[in-house]
Amino acid sequence: MLAGSVASLTYDDLPPFVVTLAKQCVLDTLGVAIAGASQPAVRLTWETVQSEAATGPCTVLGVDRRAGGAAAALVNGIAAHALDYDDLQMDAMGGHPSAPVLPAVLAAAEEAGTTGRDMLTAFVAGFEAECRVGLAVAPGHYARGFHTTSTVGTFGAAAGAARLLGLDAKRTEQALGIAALSASGVKAMFGTMGKPLQTGRAASAGFLAARLAERGLTSAEDALFCPQGFAATQTDRSDREAVCTQFGNPWHILQVLFKAHASCYGTHASIDAIGLLRRNDGLSADQVEDIEIEVPPQQLHVCAIPRPSTGLEGKFSLTFTTALSLLHGATDESRFTDDAVCDPRIVALIERMRVTSDDLLPALGARVTVRLRNGRTLAAEVDCGAPAWSRDPTEQEERLRAKFRGLVAPVLGADAAAALIDLVDHLEDLDDIRALTKELT
Amino acid sequence: MLAGSVASLTYDDLPPFVVTLAKQCVLDTLGVAIAGASQPAVRLTWETVQSEAATGPCTVLGVDRRAGGAAAALVNGIAAHALDYDDLQMDAMGGHPSAPVLPAVLAAAEEAGTTGRDMLTAFVAGFEAECRVGLAVAPGHYARGFHTTSTVGTFGAAAGAARLLGLDAKRTEQALGIAALSASGVKAMFGTMGKPLQTGRAASAGFLAARLAERGLTSAEDALFCPQGFAATQTDRSDREAVCTQFGNPWHILQVLFKAHASCYGTHASIDAIGLLRRNDGLSADQVEDIEIEVPPQQLHVCAIPRPSTGLEGKFSLTFTTALSLLHGATDESRFTDDAVCDPRIVALIERMRVTSDDLLPALGARVTVRLRNGRTLAAEVDCGAPAWSRDPTEQEERLRAKFRGLVAPVLGADAAAALIDLVDHLEDLDDIRALTKELT
Repeated sequence: MLAGSVASLTYDDLPPFVVTLAKQCVLDTLGVAIAGASQPAVRLTWETVQSEAATGPCTVLGVDRRAGGAAAALVNGIAAHALDYDDLQMDAMGGHPSAPVLPAVLAAAEEAGTTGRDMLTAFVAGFEAECRVGLAVAPGHYARGFHTTSTVGTFGAAAGAARLLGLDAKRTEQALGIAALSASGVKAMFGTMGKPLQTGRAASAGFLAARLAERGLTSAEDALFCPQGFAATQTDRSDREAVCTQFGNPWHILQVLFKAHASCYGTHASIDAIGLLRRNDGLSADQVEDIEIEVPPQQLHVCAIPRPSTGLEGKFSLTFTTALSLLHGATDESRFTDDAVCDPRIVALIERMRVTSDDLLPALGARVTVRLRNGRTLAAEVDCGAPAWSRDPTEQEERLRAKFRGLVAPVLGADAAAALIDLVDHLEDLDDIRALTKELT
Repeated sequence: MLAGSVASLTYDDLPPFVVTLAKQCVLDTLGVAIAGASQPAVRLTWETVQSEAATGPCTVLGVDRRAGGAAAALVNGIAAHALDYDDLQMDAMGGHPSAPVLPAVLAAAEEAGTTGRDMLTAFVAGFEAECRVGLAVAPGHYARGFHTTSTVGTFGAAAGAARLLGLDAKRTEQALGIAALSASGVKAMFGTMGKPLQTGRAASAGFLAARLAERGLTSAEDALFCPQGFAATQTDRSDREAVCTQFGNPWHILQVLFKAHASCYGTHASIDAIGLLRRNDGLSADQVEDIEIEVPPQQLHVCAIPRPSTGLEGKFSLTFTTALSLLHGATDESRFTDDAVCDPRIVALIERMRVTSDDLLPALGARVTVRLRNGRTLAAEVDCGAPAWSRDPTEQEERLRAKFRGLVAPVLGADAAAALIDLVDHLEDLDDIRALTKELT
């Protein structure tokens, strides 16, 4: 069962490539969180909770003082998802795996001064646990409108923190039960500060669930699947088998996807498709008569804001992101501003676009068809569903380091960014995780 | 709309009898919370969170130091529901109205040093708001397995705290939106520490939602009813009209029900029915051949644990509570012990009982039929759905004071209990709520 798998996972169980990917998740999540820490959702939450948070052992990103684990996990969890630039796991979890888990694990690790190996083991336990929970409630849970990153992520955060605290299977089961009563978050929040807020709440709730279970607080057994439990209330059908396989069969972390663009992953394929036409066919905005963006139907509920009015809404807009890609060939964080969505050149391009659905497209695929003013038609189809390492592992590592430097250097300086890359690169040799965390602010 | 009704409610809008009932809710909730503060769910939670809670202005029941509002609301919310002895509102909210709302309002009131009138106004705003939300998502929400007290209660806590903080309609709407992304809690937790824990989480989340909205954090508009929002994800059908009427048409607080027995309200009718047979017909346990307890079908999912193994489970057991009532004529808190559920006389009686359902019974009604060893049959039917004040307002007040004394005197002493009764009795004249709260520990 799930609690047993979580409680019994050791570092020696992890194949080398799983460790590599876990370190990539850590690096990427720290990068987007360090850059995200200045976002309003993060600042406003810290300003709200700081007066009642005692000084503690845990790093709060973007802030000059430390706090307890629940407060740190809340704020860092919001920061990790504030830019919507963090990693995904679509084929099992169906959400963002690291943003809820890493802040919870990191907070528990900082409190204990644990080793890098134990931290990585706990992170993988949380990651794999939430993927299994995600599988168990898919596809009904997300389809119904729940924000899997926050709901299923609460279980991942609880599992990761429970593993870090060394809880046995019985207490881990209780931590998962407390996660079941704490899990919340809805897709209505997409495009608002509520989305990162509910992700941070997941990190914090998971951390607290593990701490409460450690102390002996009890909840319902089998809360995931029992009558009137998590699955019973929040999905149509559930699959208990999904959580019963031993970890590693398969390792779901192998399917982690890292974002190359600072927008919803559902926009990546159309960004890349128009990028191909730009690079390979020399397409430019002034040639465009109109553009059809075809996506699988489910993306119409996720990232199809037709005319975004803020930079944040722009991240959930197929039209805006496609326009950005065509006009600038750049979709990094700095492009998603409230000014950019009003840029007349962008608006003019958006007015020539049409978003439609094709249910034969893969879940993370898109087809972009451009009719040119000269009567020609250009088209490209891209599928972003397969992880980049499956094409080239070295390129993925290099791309993630470049992304990290681009996000972190403006905040902490280039030297600190390089030092952090080096620390994460050798994370499994770190005796005390605090050697890493003290570099984060 | 709901946010506007919350933001515009003033003390002068409250009819005298609404004020009276609000004060009864305050008294009863404080009483069960003071007594409940020593329960394991409360102690374990405070032990878990205290190290990261800064000293603040808010009373934490059962504890020697003060904390910030979110921590106080969490712990006090758990305390208020830990005995499952707190008030109910069945015809609109379908749950326990005061346990999530009062701790959130009280925390905000203590931080501000507000008047008793403003505190009462905020409490009523939270109470009426959650009743409207409850109506809007009933009956599908509870039927699906959600714990309305915790989920819908989060909206009540947010509304009450928002009113106390004086948020305008726009910020109150945001507080309700943050409540929508925070609301959680499932009925699988009934009979475990998870039930009061999720209620305390509702109080704390509602408090935090109001504070975050006050500071400017934004979430989705119309999060209660928008696509992929609260109702869309968590009930079958919803009724927006339910939240659109002005407060007072009707005042839902008029239907508040106070518990006379320290168990699930669904057990009250059968307890009273067997009590009638005991008093009026001289029924005693040794006469019993067998007992049939008939309840409406929905109670079979709420309080029908056939053979409870802990005192807490006993509160959700029609058989155990009926046995207690017949054997001892007493169902106060002291009766719900782990020893009592193993008492051979209780167990022997339970083995002679059968619980069945009759869908013609009212929602809070029960019929008890006792076959005697001498061949005779006795039967009684009771409906606990109407508030006691509708029969006799003075008796309700007296009964609540006696209940309060019985709960609080063993903890704080008889003098403190009397002083608190007096303070709540004149709550609308209190210049600073802290004159009351300093007497709570």
